[in-house]
Amino acid sequence: MQRIFEVDPWKIVTHKLDKQNKRLQESMTSIGNEYMGMRGMFEEDYSGDTLHGLYLGGIWYPDKTVVGWWKNGYPKYFGKVINAVNFDKTNLWINNEKVDLATDQISDFELSLDMKRGILTRRFTVEKKGAKVAVTIERLVSIVDKQLFDLHYHIQNLSDQTVDIRLVSSIDADVANEDSNYDEKFWEVLAKQTNRDSAELFAKTKPNQFDVPRFTVGVGITHHTTMEAGMAPETDQSVSNAFVQTLAAQQSLNFEKRAVVVTSRDYDSFDDLRNGLHQLTRKLDAKSHDQIIQEQADAWQARWDKSDVVIDGDVAAQQGIRFNLFQLFSTFYGDDKRLNIGPKGFTGEKYGGATYWDTEAFGLPFYLSLADQKVARNLLEYRYNQLPEAFHNAHQQGLKGALYPMVTFNGIENHNEWEITFEEIHRNGTIAYAIYNYTRYTGDDSYLKEKGIDVLTAISRFWADRVEWSEHRQHYVIHGVTGPNEYENNINDNWYTNLLARWTLKYTLENLPKVSPEKQHDLDVTEDEKKQWQDIIDKLLLPEDKERGIFLQQDGFLDKNLQPASSIPADQRPINQHWSWDHILRSPYIKQADVLQGIWYFITEFTPEQKKRNFDFYEPLTVHESSLSPSVHAILAADLHYEDKAVEMYERTARLDLDNYNNDTVDGLHITSMTGSWLAIVQGFAGMRIENDQLTFKPFLPKKWTRYQFHINFRGRLLVVTVDQNGTQIKLLKGAPLTIQLNDKPVTLEKQS
Amino acid sequence: MQRIFEVDPWKIVTHKLDKQNKRLQESMTSIGNEYMGMRGMFEEDYSGDTLHGLYLGGIWYPDKTVVGWWKNGYPKYFGKVINAVNFDKTNLWINNEKVDLATDQISDFELSLDMKRGILTRRFTVEKKGAKVAVTIERLVSIVDKQLFDLHYHIQNLSDQTVDIRLVSSIDADVANEDSNYDEKFWEVLAKQTNRDSAELFAKTKPNQFDVPRFTVGVGITHHTTMEAGMAPETDQSVSNAFVQTLAAQQSLNFEKRAVVVTSRDYDSFDDLRNGLHQLTRKLDAKSHDQIIQEQADAWQARWDKSDVVIDGDVAAQQGIRFNLFQLFSTFYGDDKRLNIGPKGFTGEKYGGATYWDTEAFGLPFYLSLADQKVARNLLEYRYNQLPEAFHNAHQQGLKGALYPMVTFNGIENHNEWEITFEEIHRNGTIAYAIYNYTRYTGDDSYLKEKGIDVLTAISRFWADRVEWSEHRQHYVIHGVTGPNEYENNINDNWYTNLLARWTLKYTLENLPKVSPEKQHDLDVTEDEKKQWQDIIDKLLLPEDKERGIFLQQDGFLDKNLQPASSIPADQRPINQHWSWDHILRSPYIKQADVLQGIWYFITEFTPEQKKRNFDFYEPLTVHESSLSPSVHAILAADLHYEDKAVEMYERTARLDLDNYNNDTVDGLHITSMTGSWLAIVQGFAGMRIENDQLTFKPFLPKKWTRYQFHINFRGRLLVVTVDQNGTQIKLLKGAPLTIQLNDKPVTLEKQS
Repeated sequence: MQRIFEVDPWKIVTHKLDKQNKRLQESMTSIGNEYMGMRGMFEEDYSGDTLHGLYLGGIWYPDKTVVGWWKNGYPKYFGKVINAVNFDKTNLWINNEKVDLATDQISDFELSLDMKRGILTRRFTVEKKGAKVAVTIERLVSIVDKQLFDLHYHIQNLSDQTVDIRLVSSIDADVANEDSNYDEKFWEVLAKQTNRDSAELFAKTKPNQFDVPRFTVGVGITHHTTMEAGMAPETDQSVSNAFVQTLAAQQSLNFEKRAVVVTSRDYDSFDDLRNGLHQLTRKLDAKSHDQIIQEQADAWQARWDKSDVVIDGDVAAQQGIRFNLFQLFSTFYGDDKRLNIGPKGFTGEKYGGATYWDTEAFGLPFYLSLADQKVARNLLEYRYNQLPEAFHNAHQQGLKGALYPMVTFNGIENHNEWEITFEEIHRNGTIAYAIYNYTRYTGDDSYLKEKGIDVLTAISRFWADRVEWSEHRQHYVIHGVTGPNEYENNINDNWYTNLLARWTLKYTLENLPKVSPEKQHDLDVTEDEKKQWQDIIDKLLLPEDKERGIFLQQDGFLDKNLQPASSIPADQRPINQHWSWDHILRSPYIKQADVLQGIWYFITEFTPEQKKRNFDFYEPLTVHESSLSPSVHAILAADLHYEDKAVEMYERTARLDLDNYNNDTVDGLHITSMTGSWLAIVQGFAGMRIENDQLTFKPFLPKKWTRYQFHINFRGRLLVVTVDQNGTQIKLLKGAPLTIQLNDKPVTLEKQS
Repeated sequence: MQRIFEVDPWKIVTHKLDKQNKRLQESMTSIGNEYMGMRGMFEEDYSGDTLHGLYLGGIWYPDKTVVGWWKNGYPKYFGKVINAVNFDKTNLWINNEKVDLATDQISDFELSLDMKRGILTRRFTVEKKGAKVAVTIERLVSIVDKQLFDLHYHIQNLSDQTVDIRLVSSIDADVANEDSNYDEKFWEVLAKQTNRDSAELFAKTKPNQFDVPRFTVGVGITHHTTMEAGMAPETDQSVSNAFVQTLAAQQSLNFEKRAVVVTSRDYDSFDDLRNGLHQLTRKLDAKSHDQIIQEQADAWQARWDKSDVVIDGDVAAQQGIRFNLFQLFSTFYGDDKRLNIGPKGFTGEKYGGATYWDTEAFGLPFYLSLADQKVARNLLEYRYNQLPEAFHNAHQQGLKGALYPMVTFNGIENHNEWEITFEEIHRNGTIAYAIYNYTRYTGDDSYLKEKGIDVLTAISRFWADRVEWSEHRQHYVIHGVTGPNEYENNINDNWYTNLLARWTLKYTLENLPKVSPEKQHDLDVTEDEKKQWQDIIDKLLLPEDKERGIFLQQDGFLDKNLQPASSIPADQRPINQHWSWDHILRSPYIKQADVLQGIWYFITEFTPEQKKRNFDFYEPLTVHESSLSPSVHAILAADLHYEDKAVEMYERTARLDLDNYNNDTVDGLHITSMTGSWLAIVQGFAGMRIENDQLTFKPFLPKKWTRYQFHINFRGRLLVVTVDQNGTQIKLLKGAPLTIQLNDKPVTLEKQS
């Protein structure tokens, strides 16, 4: 655990420029608006350790880099998030010397992310070349005008002598990814133009040898200031505008840079894109700075009104949950159907903005409750729209039906490690489960009937082809898989995978008769196929150990040396940073919920005894080194009335990044896992379920807290749930009356006038 | 199967320029002298499909390229054979137009590798720009003067008009590997000089971010011709000499290029290297072309005298075995202790010149019988000298003792796929076994006592740390391994691995008391350690199926869908080119001998019944898609008197490359597997074993053949064994009298005067 920001209910704030942990500071002060986003790196050149990361939603490159021995079935390329053309770049000179906070003498440093308004502020006083200057820099990516990045400087001369201030504002396409092997660059400049106080640059991703379309991006910068403009040096890859002003003693100046960013994702031709950029720039340039700030604050307030979680009695917990909500909404708010939720959002290169099963497993329930229903539906349609690519992925492996990708930008599998790409097929189960989850929560079966059934049928066909009959076991088996616990690879009969395979077949068979005759005709599931599916449902192996009363994570799991995770010396945790992969694989330790993930998905369908035995067996073997792990365990612990355990698990998920629990936040935030703290509160502490088509709650109040409160969007209603020492209060803020179950008793909610 | 060369006992010859199979032609016409080698690509630019491959023994680059997710314990870099500075490059102009056989009109083409003399000859007649010219090009890498490459042109004007001939001879450092991802280059030119008719160039491998030394190479070219010299254009990366002559009608010319190549592997400083190059160039330049040719022929004859295998009645088989011997000797002849046998030798980039366990498993028995004893000892010392690096490799995985690398240039593991690097640890067993194999064959236990015991102890300590106690099984187990059958990954209790682990511990315990007290003191194997080793020997799981009377390849192997390989449709073979890796892993199909590899190693220690049951169970499941597979099966089939099967397996190994059996010879030859045909004849058909410290034979004659004959070097003797319809004749050609067993009867051999 490493806490480098101060505890505050609405801000991520520090008063120290922590050069040792600069990247961690940057990860934590990321901002985004779904369309684009960036780490909290400085605008100016910084000669110390830093990771400049600026990303555009849906802009990526198909990398062909190959190492090791090719395995048949691998995708031809793997997708790579690319660092965008750098449009935040702005350098500051004081008396003709460039400011560099890595080496300059500074004081009064503050870095503060205002989550209520979505604005990042940096302040510092710098003394150099006889001058003393106070600088305040505010930046935002607008959630009102997605294409707008705004950067505002307030610079004051604190000394009694005049000071020469120079600002150079740039757009730079000479950008590499840090994970490049041979410093390869991905942007080619198409056109650029520099005017007196504005500039623009158009760049295209470089050619690829696959059929992946190249992306074009256009950026225009304009400036609002009293400073005097002059031409700045430019290069083949960049454009710049320079501004100068001599400040008298105590005098100050304001300088605002606006960057408008358009991409070929939204335009049909280069001319359209260029015209679009010009129109947008004109439109956005007409807004005042105050207006931009006010609109940003109002829009964030509207989001908070629908979703805020209040925790009394624990400011750190309060800060944690708001940080998670803020970063999730910054990554994805459902405005663009073609986008999804990247595990690191816009906060780092690693795992970047690609789509994983995290979305359906952990993101969907969150957005179902906290945003309009169409957001969740858009997430489902994203997969429906990528069904052709999922057929392709299965075909690559010589299998029938559809296999959704482990990692993707366009629906095609974009990752090439066999134990993931070929084996972590349980992801298909979660894609199917998400349809059920949506339908159950919203009560809306139109998606299931119109589109979901296509996905379910295609996935069922995959499972039916992927199982094998074992003469020796007299069961269908699923060999060669990796379960959610990625600390095991190439195992046989992962209970979780087999459970989801069997469930998918069953759910598909149940729903097929409910869809329209036309749809049934199109899907063409034959009687033989249905019989085969039923046979698999009846005879698929779900390994168990009867003696212990547990489901077996996989064949042979009990052969391992089953010492609890508590026996691992503290200096060897997390094991993934201390043990070789070989050691990890042989160990019994579980990275994240595996059997328990299955129990969570169908939590109302297992007996308390089953839940208890499995939790008691598996949790002590679990190291929770996936950020996706603690939330599931918090929910199950709460379900079993292990309240202390539930709170312990909550604490790991709520401040995972803020306290750098897994010692890897330096690479970026664990965006998709951030739903976990919300899930732990809502499904865990408050025990929210859907049972018999009703919303139900069985809340408890963690000892440390005096009160917690959260909002729930449910079937057109907005509810606010408050839990304190006096019990639970549920209020209907919007929508028609609703009957729910609270502690096993029906309660009818009506809006108070 | 694809046969593109003519059948001939001593030549690899074709009269067709097969543009579709140009790379295959190139692989098959590779030449080498252990110090350097090259594919059979043309000297001149060729605009069609070709793979230019020229490699220097021991010259490589540590590549940092990373893709996928880093696994803890991976080596920091992986070694990459790099394409050497191109010194064979020579272009021919006829009437001012460059010859390019991809597009020119040619006739009388011949490409012929003379294996008796080690010379590659190419002939063609080309008609262009009104001229008709006959060209004969001979090339060799000298096995007498290792640093010498010799290229000789005979060019004749076949027309009645004069023809302008121009030859440009170059050294070019602007060379990339074909498997490069971003066209990265590995050579930096240090210095170069061009004289009137000679030139030189010095280049260094580019810097790396590891502690791997950079290599420097120096190349000097000289020319012997009546052509007139003139200056040729040169570039930053290359030097060239140009020569011109106008040929009258029917007139001809000779042109000889000699390249002398030195590397920093043999010199302490750049000055030494430069001086060394100049001295060598002067010395070698003093030889006449005839002398170079004659010395080459004589030296190859001396090799053949000690090793030739004669097969009567089957010219294809005859050609196959000689091709294998020729290519093996071209790759490695034991002159340089620091070198080893690369799986593709100098014939391709893939798997290039790195060292694999193939050397000990398949190469050692070959060199033991066909070369001086010191060659085999050098192979063992190579591993002894890399013991510190083997400790490092084990340490990387958090394990005690020594782990020899799967792939290496310098003893450090140089491959980074976890299922290989971390899991294919059986390689350690073969390193240990090789010590036993050498000692048993030579009768010389000095290596074992002086150096081998260090290796054995270090490997035993690895095994003792790698096993785990399974409470559930009440056995020691070895989880998470890949056996020789690489079509299974991350399996538990591979019988072969466990067998070798147990055997190593036993052999080490047996031999420890025999070494000097000083050595025992240094090794410091404690009594507790010995007790632990004995406990592992007693309780290590060696999985069996009692009912079937077989050893189990791994835990759970019988759960698979056990259809024989014969049930795979022909158009899906080889499966590694048709099935996804996932499909392969789930299948029961075996790439190469696994259980049977263990039975081969200890062939005299299993009962005929055990051998039969295991062969009958596993061979039908084996697809022999490793080139290392058929030979082991040929030997075992012969042992079981399955003579037809033995011959079938022999045929797959003998002409594996010549007939492109696995459809991958285009990438290069399967050098280390080439020992297989010799093993199949000698250990298979002739049944050679060492039993009770005696050489024994139980030969049979394959039906197709009328006679076969081979040479054996054994404990200072040279024997020739002849098998024909009349039985077996064994003659002692050199050395002291020797008693052997022939068909279970003792025979004493004496040299005939």
